[in-house]
Amino acid sequence: MSRDTRREAGRRDVLRATAAERGLDAVLVTNLLNVRYLTGFTGSNGALLVRADGGDVFGTDGRYTTQAGTQVPDVELVVDRATVPALAREAVRRGGVRIGYESHDLTVDGLHGLEQVLADAAAGGTAPELASVRRAVEAQRIIKDDNEIELLRRACAVADQALAELAAEGALRPGRTELEVGRELDARMLALGAEAPSFETIVAAGANSAIPHHRPDRTELRAGDFLKLDFGATVEGYHSDMTRTLVLGHAADWQREIYALVAASQAAGRAALAVGADVVAVDSAARDVIVAAGHGEHFTHGLGHGVGLEIHEAPGIGQLGAGTLAAGMAVTVEPGVYLPGHGGVRIEDTLIVTDDAPELLTLTSKELLVL
Amino acid sequence: MSRDTRREAGRRDVLRATAAERGLDAVLVTNLLNVRYLTGFTGSNGALLVRADGGDVFGTDGRYTTQAGTQVPDVELVVDRATVPALAREAVRRGGVRIGYESHDLTVDGLHGLEQVLADAAAGGTAPELASVRRAVEAQRIIKDDNEIELLRRACAVADQALAELAAEGALRPGRTELEVGRELDARMLALGAEAPSFETIVAAGANSAIPHHRPDRTELRAGDFLKLDFGATVEGYHSDMTRTLVLGHAADWQREIYALVAASQAAGRAALAVGADVVAVDSAARDVIVAAGHGEHFTHGLGHGVGLEIHEAPGIGQLGAGTLAAGMAVTVEPGVYLPGHGGVRIEDTLIVTDDAPELLTLTSKELLVL
Repeated sequence: MSRDTRREAGRRDVLRATAAERGLDAVLVTNLLNVRYLTGFTGSNGALLVRADGGDVFGTDGRYTTQAGTQVPDVELVVDRATVPALAREAVRRGGVRIGYESHDLTVDGLHGLEQVLADAAAGGTAPELASVRRAVEAQRIIKDDNEIELLRRACAVADQALAELAAEGALRPGRTELEVGRELDARMLALGAEAPSFETIVAAGANSAIPHHRPDRTELRAGDFLKLDFGATVEGYHSDMTRTLVLGHAADWQREIYALVAASQAAGRAALAVGADVVAVDSAARDVIVAAGHGEHFTHGLGHGVGLEIHEAPGIGQLGAGTLAAGMAVTVEPGVYLPGHGGVRIEDTLIVTDDAPELLTLTSKELLVL
Repeated sequence: MSRDTRREAGRRDVLRATAAERGLDAVLVTNLLNVRYLTGFTGSNGALLVRADGGDVFGTDGRYTTQAGTQVPDVELVVDRATVPALAREAVRRGGVRIGYESHDLTVDGLHGLEQVLADAAAGGTAPELASVRRAVEAQRIIKDDNEIELLRRACAVADQALAELAAEGALRPGRTELEVGRELDARMLALGAEAPSFETIVAAGANSAIPHHRPDRTELRAGDFLKLDFGATVEGYHSDMTRTLVLGHAADWQREIYALVAASQAAGRAALAVGADVVAVDSAARDVIVAAGHGEHFTHGLGHGVGLEIHEAPGIGQLGAGTLAAGMAVTVEPGVYLPGHGGVRIEDTLIVTDDAPELLTLTSKELLVL
């Protein structure tokens, strides 16, 4: 029973066309997430040679022979502990004289090893030339296909459900610690089918909520305090990312005010997510709301980022970003206002850019939840 | 309330001495685990400049300003999103002319960026020279101190406890799937205080147990089948690693035979863990038992590996390894016999090499457990 491998084969064909355009005989893909994207392989050691003429080669070590047969049945397999040298030798054997590699992934030692292998394989003749393909595969990954969007939907649904269950069971109550809440969120996501949390879950109570990336500690949740939860689930390699900020007990006026401000900013950011929109303008749409309220200095990070096989990937949405949005991009919108020593609010969704309104994947309510 | 930072300061002094020995003015540490080892910083973006004359500099981005103040209060902080260029400029500003870097970690693009920054910082003068320090920090990490050993003990205890609870509750019974068991083991480890599983938990039932690194799927546990569990917990960054193989219901003679064989091999491997022992000889001590029984071809991997801040680190214990054991090394001993299509047994412990007998950290019984 082989799986359907047409999706990954199509992705390799896109990279093959890029290689041909750039005058490369082959591209050696070493970034493990890129290898996964192009083959479906989920092991911890693998590399891929995509050849301009076809006849690709996948390399992994003996631990993964069976798994490679199941996950990558349509690509010739080379089993070797040193996958990169093995594929480099295959490239030369098949007549490659100009070989692309990923200079943002290969280490300096890795490049030296590769150069040595190519020189040896040339056996006195001219060694093949190496040329960086830069982030050619990441450029493909930025637009998600229907299957990837479905996996992102599932990852977001797991996070939504985990938070709903914890809230319904009264697990978010005064006296509990940030660490306890974080561990329960993580365990609940696993029980609901996540492979892992998307990143180290952030649980920030009271004044800690003013720290954008607070690491959960033994701080206790208290009545009247903000509770900021930033977390996500990974499903078949795809990450969700959501932040919600709650109040335990009674919300004070200052809390309602900054919550309403961040919610308005976040709505403006979501409304600006359109095909062709410049990422700087999207950031500005949300930021201007906060700046106009006099809190510009308290919004200390960019508005959002792409999400997929990595929790942070292209496109970056911020004042330092560049480029425009396109249909099929998966991005977060996450403005925040942080008042040091007092507390902070961040509201974050994961969404898909479409030709119409963006599709919201994180469905938990954004009303100020007072538990 | 600052934490005690003397441990990390001492580690930096060891690296400082290495730098001086090698004629380097400073070492730029980019590997994030090495940065953690040398500073205590647990964030996702950080780099460290260790200077031969003292006056080290730690770099991270604005998300981690507060965390850096708590975790690394004793090292000068530079907040910059691009940590490596920022530290390179600091190195030049303080008169560095020969700077070490980690060529096994820095990417090709990273090195080019670094060279550009150094050329710019030299402002027309001679740019500082870059020289790889190779795995100098990893060489320090190979010997664990008392605190690291205590964290490894705790990580192993979490895994022991998680398995004991699942077995006691009857969670390992026919009809359940590998995926269900894997998720419960993971969730239980989190509930017991692990930050995360050490790696993707392996649950392999029946014929799947013959696959050394089987990924849990919807295969159901069945009476009379082997059940192989390979898993671990991470506590404060330190990983445990343990494999146990059980039988559900009644064990057949062939199962008892290969279990006894692997257990004898594993005992021989543990007995060979001594200060000064060659890693090839340690592997042979365990392997010879399996070869003598005619199953040499069914033991398809090395005997073990070091464990610490990484799940796989130096020293490798196998026929392709090199070097000798020293007191304070943390290693696994994990022989296996895999009969394709039938089933396999692996038994794995994590241990500390000492001047006396090795200290066993994974305490779950190695009797053939028939549930």
